Amino acid sequence: MVKNIAIAGVTGAVGQEFLEILEQRAFPVKSIKMLASERSVGREIVFRGRTYKVEQLTENSFANIDIALFSAGASRSKQFAPAAVKAGAVVVDNSSAFRMDPDIPLVVPEVNPQEIFKHKGIIANPNCSTIIANVPLWPLHKANPIKRIVISTYQAASGAGQAAMLELMQQARQILDDEPPVCRKFKYQIAFNLFNHDSEIYPNGYNAEEMKMVHETHKIFGCDDIAITCTCVRVPVLRAHSESINLEFTHPISPDEVRQLLEKAPGVSIIDDRINNRFPMPIDAGGKDDVYVGRIREDESIQGHRGINLWVVGDQIRKGAALNAIQIAEKLL
Amino acid sequence: MVKNIAIAGVTGAVGQEFLEILEQRAFPVKSIKMLASERSVGREIVFRGRTYKVEQLTENSFANIDIALFSAGASRSKQFAPAAVKAGAVVVDNSSAFRMDPDIPLVVPEVNPQEIFKHKGIIANPNCSTIIANVPLWPLHKANPIKRIVISTYQAASGAGQAAMLELMQQARQILDDEPPVCRKFKYQIAFNLFNHDSEIYPNGYNAEEMKMVHETHKIFGCDDIAITCTCVRVPVLRAHSESINLEFTHPISPDEVRQLLEKAPGVSIIDDRINNRFPMPIDAGGKDDVYVGRIREDESIQGHRGINLWVVGDQIRKGAALNAIQIAEKLL
Repeated sequence: MVKNIAIAGVTGAVGQEFLEILEQRAFPVKSIKMLASERSVGREIVFRGRTYKVEQLTENSFANIDIALFSAGASRSKQFAPAAVKAGAVVVDNSSAFRMDPDIPLVVPEVNPQEIFKHKGIIANPNCSTIIANVPLWPLHKANPIKRIVISTYQAASGAGQAAMLELMQQARQILDDEPPVCRKFKYQIAFNLFNHDSEIYPNGYNAEEMKMVHETHKIFGCDDIAITCTCVRVPVLRAHSESINLEFTHPISPDEVRQLLEKAPGVSIIDDRINNRFPMPIDAGGKDDVYVGRIREDESIQGHRGINLWVVGDQIRKGAALNAIQIAEKLL
Repeated sequence: MVKNIAIAGVTGAVGQEFLEILEQRAFPVKSIKMLASERSVGREIVFRGRTYKVEQLTENSFANIDIALFSAGASRSKQFAPAAVKAGAVVVDNSSAFRMDPDIPLVVPEVNPQEIFKHKGIIANPNCSTIIANVPLWPLHKANPIKRIVISTYQAASGAGQAAMLELMQQARQILDDEPPVCRKFKYQIAFNLFNHDSEIYPNGYNAEEMKMVHETHKIFGCDDIAITCTCVRVPVLRAHSESINLEFTHPISPDEVRQLLEKAPGVSIIDDRINNRFPMPIDAGGKDDVYVGRIREDESIQGHRGINLWVVGDQIRKGAALNAIQIAEKLL
């Protein structure tokens, strides 16, 4: 049952989280290969008390590998994942490279675990904001089909990688010290500021992140009928995404029913204390596995008691990326 | 035409902005009285090159005052505004004390200036988030009645006053220096974090800020038919509020029509550069009079080309509070 693992992109924020989660969850690792781009070759990484040297990710990196976890960007996934599959590995890919390929499963284990076993070598890990929304929305959708979703996100710097998290902190210090903030990773100032998501803008005016949430949710839920619109925003927070979610259901539903459904939903924790104004915050979710849900309330702007507002927060690096991929790998065991 | 002015709450963030705007707009000031609570008495404030001493706000503060600008909190407005009116002043009140009183006009000058002249001594200045949303939504509503609005806000620390802005910066430095962040003004950490709005939570689960946006918009637009739902969130930004606004119109409307309507709308500036991913940001709006609008795009989750998404940013202290009140006072001249 123990497996030979390779991690492509091991020096990145998600790569490092892969290692932490493999340790924490006692994943049955027989051997592990630390792969990254040329500039990281030779860097030392400790895993389960042993020191490994980072090797260069190439098409020849995957001999005898059982499971390859990829988080090295879409272009590297496109270049190297087929070689890993050819060598006999199953690839769980955290990039956007294969997500919308109809032949490749796109999986949130709490939603569509059955898709995992349809793989032909590659399983795609969804976008972070999509995963964090899908975990609590799926049990609601199963109980009462969702007709329309309006989402506004509050996305952490971590979604743009370790360098972006560092940039947020460096800019904050620069501003506090009355120095001009230096923008390298992000085009615009992120400290004490916010901006619409730093992804490509399509001709319809939506950014790539917004359209990922629409298309990936349709694929994961196996249902194109849900009308979805998103506004994705980057905020000066380090590593947890928050989402304001407005839902229109097919049939009447009460906040109490939503709460009951979410209380027994896998991967969901509820923080919904109105008396103390205590609802999920990014600092609650940082480093945690669950998606936190609160502010469960009726939206009376929708007729017939079919509207619900929710507030959802999840760790972008963990459930939004590394944990979800490892949960997929666990199902493969 | 020159007026005797009193400012109640002159030492606060909005009070200080009143002074700056009166100077900038060459408001015809004959005399000015600097009023605040006891602990600020004697503090010196410079206005138009002259130094004034802060006096204590009492019921006897308003002899010979023509216009009293109040921004000292709802309880002080309730206590002292009637005395100002009795002394012959017209009060423009920035607090929530009188906003929903059916006998008191609630005014955004770009929307319902005619209401100003119905006053019986007090004119209420709306909530900051309400003003910032109402300025761009009104010209759209006039052209094509809005049926439903879904708003998620990204609100700056300034809405909780100067102390909150200072707390955001102090906490940021504490966290950067690996010290625990100290929470005084806000219950929870605001630096590198965010939380649902720090106002009272009603039995329906909505916070006071959210319900203000609903009820005040209905009153200002003179139209209770618009279905409105809000999620109000405090973010680690200093002084400009952002709002993600989803609109359902009665009749079909295109992003180009929305853009044309907003281009000629008073108090609105458009920043909507898809090629450069350049849309309104809090740092654009800080210290500016206009409400900035961008990300104007069709929401295809609403049938019949009746859906539009917008992104709106405005300075909370300025158009969200002090400027709007002074624009009301200018109409009184």
